[in-house]
Amino acid sequence: MTQNTKAFDHWIRTDFVAINTQLETLYFEHHSDRAQVEGIGDDLKQQLLNDGRTLLASLLAEGNTDEGFDAGFDLLGNIGFYMAACRRHELTEPSRETKSPLVEASALALQVGASIGMIPRFSTAHLTTHNQAINGRAKSFTHLPDEAIFNEFNTRSILAYQEASTALIKVVDVGISSPVAIDLLHTAGVALKKVFDSNQQLNDQLDVDRFFYSVRPYYKSHRVGNNIYRGANAGDFAGINIIDLLLGLCRADESYYSQLLVDKMLYMMPDDQAALRNAMRLPNLLDALLSSPDGNWKAAAATALLKVCRAHGATAEQHHNLLVERFIRVPSQQLAAQHHQNLTASGPPLPVLLAALEKLRDLRCASPRHDIVTAAAKMDQVKELLR
Amino acid sequence: MTQNTKAFDHWIRTDFVAINTQLETLYFEHHSDRAQVEGIGDDLKQQLLNDGRTLLASLLAEGNTDEGFDAGFDLLGNIGFYMAACRRHELTEPSRETKSPLVEASALALQVGASIGMIPRFSTAHLTTHNQAINGRAKSFTHLPDEAIFNEFNTRSILAYQEASTALIKVVDVGISSPVAIDLLHTAGVALKKVFDSNQQLNDQLDVDRFFYSVRPYYKSHRVGNNIYRGANAGDFAGINIIDLLLGLCRADESYYSQLLVDKMLYMMPDDQAALRNAMRLPNLLDALLSSPDGNWKAAAATALLKVCRAHGATAEQHHNLLVERFIRVPSQQLAAQHHQNLTASGPPLPVLLAALEKLRDLRCASPRHDIVTAAAKMDQVKELLR
Amino acid sequence: MTQNTKAFDHWIRTDFVAINTQLETLYFEHHSDRAQVEGIGDDLKQQLLNDGRTLLASLLAEGNTDEGFDAGFDLLGNIGFYMAACRRHELTEPSRETKSPLVEASALALQVGASIGMIPRFSTAHLTTHNQAINGRAKSFTHLPDEAIFNEFNTRSILAYQEASTALIKVVDVGISSPVAIDLLHTAGVALKKVFDSNQQLNDQLDVDRFFYSVRPYYKSHRVGNNIYRGANAGDFAGINIIDLLLGLCRADESYYSQLLVDKMLYMMPDDQAALRNAMRLPNLLDALLSSPDGNWKAAAATALLKVCRAHGATAEQHHNLLVERFIRVPSQQLAAQHHQNLTASGPPLPVLLAALEKLRDLRCASPRHDIVTAAAKMDQVKELLR
Amino acid sequence: MTQNTKAFDHWIRTDFVAINTQLETLYFEHHSDRAQVEGIGDDLKQQLLNDGRTLLASLLAEGNTDEGFDAGFDLLGNIGFYMAACRRHELTEPSRETKSPLVEASALALQVGASIGMIPRFSTAHLTTHNQAINGRAKSFTHLPDEAIFNEFNTRSILAYQEASTALIKVVDVGISSPVAIDLLHTAGVALKKVFDSNQQLNDQLDVDRFFYSVRPYYKSHRVGNNIYRGANAGDFAGINIIDLLLGLCRADESYYSQLLVDKMLYMMPDDQAALRNAMRLPNLLDALLSSPDGNWKAAAATALLKVCRAHGATAEQHHNLLVERFIRVPSQQLAAQHHQNLTASGPPLPVLLAALEKLRDLRCASPRHDIVTAAAKMDQVKELLR
Ligand code: HEM
Ligand code: HEM
Repeated sequence: MTQNTKAFDHWIRTDFVAINTQLETLYFEHHSDRAQVEGIGDDLKQQLLNDGRTLLASLLAEGNTDEGFDAGFDLLGNIGFYMAACRRHELTEPSRETKSPLVEASALALQVGASIGMIPRFSTAHLTTHNQAINGRAKSFTHLPDEAIFNEFNTRSILAYQEASTALIKVVDVGISSPVAIDLLHTAGVALKKVFDSNQQLNDQLDVDRFFYSVRPYYKSHRVGNNIYRGANAGDFAGINIIDLLLGLCRADESYYSQLLVDKMLYMMPDDQAALRNAMRLPNLLDALLSSPDGNWKAAAATALLKVCRAHGATAEQHHNLLVERFIRVPSQQLAAQHHQNLTASGPPLPVLLAALEKLRDLRCASPRHDIVTAAAKMDQVKELLR
Repeated sequence: MTQNTKAFDHWIRTDFVAINTQLETLYFEHHSDRAQVEGIGDDLKQQLLNDGRTLLASLLAEGNTDEGFDAGFDLLGNIGFYMAACRRHELTEPSRETKSPLVEASALALQVGASIGMIPRFSTAHLTTHNQAINGRAKSFTHLPDEAIFNEFNTRSILAYQEASTALIKVVDVGISSPVAIDLLHTAGVALKKVFDSNQQLNDQLDVDRFFYSVRPYYKSHRVGNNIYRGANAGDFAGINIIDLLLGLCRADESYYSQLLVDKMLYMMPDDQAALRNAMRLPNLLDALLSSPDGNWKAAAATALLKVCRAHGATAEQHHNLLVERFIRVPSQQLAAQHHQNLTASGPPLPVLLAALEKLRDLRCASPRHDIVTAAAKMDQVKELLR
Repeated sequence: MTQNTKAFDHWIRTDFVAINTQLETLYFEHHSDRAQVEGIGDDLKQQLLNDGRTLLASLLAEGNTDEGFDAGFDLLGNIGFYMAACRRHELTEPSRETKSPLVEASALALQVGASIGMIPRFSTAHLTTHNQAINGRAKSFTHLPDEAIFNEFNTRSILAYQEASTALIKVVDVGISSPVAIDLLHTAGVALKKVFDSNQQLNDQLDVDRFFYSVRPYYKSHRVGNNIYRGANAGDFAGINIIDLLLGLCRADESYYSQLLVDKMLYMMPDDQAALRNAMRLPNLLDALLSSPDGNWKAAAATALLKVCRAHGATAEQHHNLLVERFIRVPSQQLAAQHHQNLTASGPPLPVLLAALEKLRDLRCASPRHDIVTAAAKMDQVKELLR
Repeated sequence: MTQNTKAFDHWIRTDFVAINTQLETLYFEHHSDRAQVEGIGDDLKQQLLNDGRTLLASLLAEGNTDEGFDAGFDLLGNIGFYMAACRRHELTEPSRETKSPLVEASALALQVGASIGMIPRFSTAHLTTHNQAINGRAKSFTHLPDEAIFNEFNTRSILAYQEASTALIKVVDVGISSPVAIDLLHTAGVALKKVFDSNQQLNDQLDVDRFFYSVRPYYKSHRVGNNIYRGANAGDFAGINIIDLLLGLCRADESYYSQLLVDKMLYMMPDDQAALRNAMRLPNLLDALLSSPDGNWKAAAATALLKVCRAHGATAEQHHNLLVERFIRVPSQQLAAQHHQNLTASGPPLPVLLAALEKLRDLRCASPRHDIVTAAAKMDQVKELLR
């Protein structure tokens, strides 16, 4: 790390967090309308804007100091934290501008993003699986315990999904009829149970209002250079889609789902991009099971595969029916009318988003639907094997 | 290649070309308004639409038949040719739809694009450097000689730019003060001269109207799935930008230029993406020369570097002042008013595009400008060395 | 798969196994000297030799049919199975030849090996993690249950080591002081316990004589083309070394250990090679823990790390003191004198090999030694933290 | 670069060169037997040994300071220069030791080599295409002009071979029947002519005795850790073999040639390894031409391809009949008997080496031979096309 990179990282881990925390406290105290940002804490906002700009200007002046992927990724995260906070405090607002007013930040973010092969903003991995703690503290926007809770349980769920996807890829390597496939499917199932438990704990510990008013706003869409980039979300990692594909619950040649993969590709780390690409070309286990000739091994494999599918479906249902419902849909209804546009500014309108998530839930649960093809029929065939 | 892939490739190389050629003839005969598409050759259009759809449906039914990058890239090109022709004949039109009506084509294109790491449409490489000829015939939309001329000379220019960029990367590997650097700079200069000559021949042989009315329309923006993807252009390869960067004429941490790199990244082949990313982290030769202590080698290196910069500037000037001017700006002015929107539907409005290309030209020529920083001052320092 | 590749694969999965099994039965019945191969079952041996050669000649004639890494890897395994069986039955013998008499097999193996970046013989992954079962049967040399037991439990142990190494890499990504590090260390510990249990089951179920006389001989060194390649062994995967390195028990800049890494590099799959290379540049967790300032998190992290180190040490001790001892050292002592050379022909002399494995065990157990530096002293420092 | 890396690099570029030069002067003055090393300049040798060791010990103590591939590659070169000089001055000698006495150097070289995926010694690229000059001076062992001449013209030839191979790969991308194939074949031919001219200049300018007695000895085989690694030679780059393969003159599934590819693989840079692997799976142009249906394009393509083949053959003939003959075979004959073993210690005995090089020449010239299959017959078919 160069001196300038270090100074910026130090700021992001100290003053930056302090300022955001103070601002969140002010907003949240404003009981009549907690979503109100304008006109509150203007000095703090200016300090944030200017301190960041000064540090970034030094970095930019220093020029290219190539130190490998890890350093680039880390720097991109720090720039991204700054840009996301500016957007959260409405120092920038994509619908009001045609180009980010954060000129230095945009220039650096575009360069670093392009050079490491990711979108030019912070991504989920910066907050979770690649959020490097120093002496016990991970990076964060604020000191609010709710943010820490959100990030920690997100991380645990992502890691557990990755454990499951890693195991399933290894099943493909040995074939569904291999004696060790059963062990691997068991490993995948255990990992998905971990996801479920972690999500449940997140639900139990996270305060709805604090999340909705003080954490979520840092994940809004914003511009970098000319373009708007949607916010990071906890789903921006390959593992869950690899599970979808390898279990045969979702199909890469189905237009809705492949669109989704395309849209999230550059929000993932390069290794994750490669892993997802690889999984797109692999045969799925469901079809492999159903198309195999009968044999002694088959009932056990079917049972094991079914169990993994159910565990995956259960996390999807929990995500949609519990987490999205409680932490997004319900509080959104209570939002003062003037902020609605702002809410939807972070992507598609809420009803559209919810319908899309529902579709995904039903695919993962292999629930029968009239409008799209799910794996419901194939699941029935598997159950048939177990008669 | 599977049977279905082969059948589709055969169609793209035969009937598809024949239909497009017939349609172009009809449009072009319509002297009063050659840009008029609606209501002309409707049977041919329907045949194109349906024949393609049938072939694609078989392909989609066949499912995933992973045969490596080359096969995927090739297939994507074929799907892309079909989608681009549909758009050219206004069977689809992005401003009129919210999602491509070519459902099967979109599904396959999204899958294949995502799995090889490129945008889900045909790209320049499909037309030029990776356009696999069979028995003397490269792929094309039409049998028009003008299309062949355009593609062939584009290919020659791209290949020559790549020769130059390859040589410059090798200069970085040995250092600007190495005795072999001079040879490599010479190689780069010779290659850029080839670009100039090829562009000149293109200018001499290409018919303005035929290009404008019968070739260019195949390169319009269109939707794949939900999103609009801009058309391919002869610039979608890494070489020219690697030259820009290594010569120190453009900077990856300058916001306008890095935006441009980001925007074109996924239009390039994965190897090209990697090469461009690599070049973004390399030191540039201009700064390397200027910051070196004096030595015997320096005057010769400065002379050689200057020569390459001038050769590069010359091709940029020629592209803008000759090719863009003659083949785009002038004929656009004569376009009937009702097609103007259609023209700009393929990207930003023409004046905006022209201003952007002008900026690029001035950067490459190291011309002094008031609004942006070019390498003009540094070039003067180099000339100083030669006093 | 081409027709010829399929035919060869079919043969390897059927007749080839049958012939080897018959030969093993003959050898094993020869109670006075089970290591005697010469003069037994000569017809069967010739059939094996010739049938394989014929199939390979067709493959070679067919020429290059590039179908991606997976196909190449699989083909290499099949050729390797054939060559290893020829060597086991002493149809070839490296000390008697200067170049493999299996000309076609060598030619193909060298080509495929070079083109996928691995040594030109079958490797451990072909027998274990990438041994694709068809209808319940993995590939094997014989139908002997002991071979199946050996491969299955090897696979389980390898997979569990990989689980542990994957978790440790993720600890590096978040830092040892991260709240989720504890979870990941726990995952690693659980995985290492799986290794221990799997090894124990292997010990319980594997017959010493059958392993020693009928399975192990297929893993001997042999020539491919001009060079001798040592046999595959269950350690030819990156996971265990990644654990060694990340726990700080072994060091990549220590000459004995880096030699070991170099020697096994090309016996691993390309992804594993890359993973190991990556781990060589990562900081280790032991040093990271010891060099961090004090904090609330530290005692818990120290406890968790210590637990993982102990679990890793336990598997190393078990491998050396139980498995190597019972299945190699003891039976070797009983081997008729005339086969001793043959035994050692498969690599370094046994005592040298055993001493090397002992060193490795002591490094992994962080046992104090006089001749080499182990992590014993650092482990004491960690324990100090827990007072 | 860390302080220690910089200090070592500085030493390699200054004192190290000075000491070697002094030693070469002493050896060369010893007219009666210029190959005599023992007993000459012992103080200088000890200084070299010790100064290097001290610098390397600091480096080793500093520990892992991952700074990306380029830094690792560069460091490996510097360690390799030191080890090669020690071997040249017979401070180490592989046949007298079982393990390199340069313990620190070996440890570091093994680590760095393994971590970047190359053999743990300096390789040709360190001397030529990636020999980074500082202020006009490339790295070298001595200040002798002959060494500079040798390296510079080697570099030029390698670069020109690479130009040719790059062009041929692009021919494969467009197909031999593409209109631009002719241009690319022309480019390849021009590049091969450059090789010929550069080799000729090398022959004209290089002093036989100086090369034989004062330059060549630095390229001898030596141990790193336990293993002996053969010396670098000007052929350790992928380009020439890619040309062999794509022209159809050599075949990757022919055992002699694939053995050669395997043996040199890790002596090349990772990018070169990947390029060679890729070329191994590509169809060759000769077969592509001969198997195409007739067409207008065919005579021109045949003429162009033939020309490239001839140009390639010409450089091979020149290498063998001129360079190897004059600079190796003839002077070897005059070598005092006691050094003969030493000569062959650097690899296979001279006659074996010469026979191998002759074979290679004949393959490249497509000369008919009785013992091996060359492309002679196919070349005749091509000529037939031109009747
Ligand atoms: C009739 C001939 C040509 C015309 C009318 C033409 C026109 C254009 C236009 C209008 C653009 C802007 C596209 C956009 O951003 O939407 C463009 C971009 C570009 N063209 Fe051309 N072009 C021609 C031939 C060539 C040739 C032969 C090359 C050489 C490879 C070339 C290289 C480029 C490059 C590199 C760009 C990207 C912008 C840049 O980096 O300069 N063009 N061209
Ligand atoms: C004084 C000049 C040269 C001499 C005496 C010479 C000698 C040799 C020798 C003896 C070998 C065999 C090395 C071994 O296998 O141990 C060899 C290999 C090789 N040399 Fe040279 N060489 C010279 C210059 C060059 C140049 C300028 C090139 C051009 C790049 C070149 C390219 C090669 C190649 C490619 C090989 C590997 C075998 C092959 O593919 O032909 N050499 N050379």
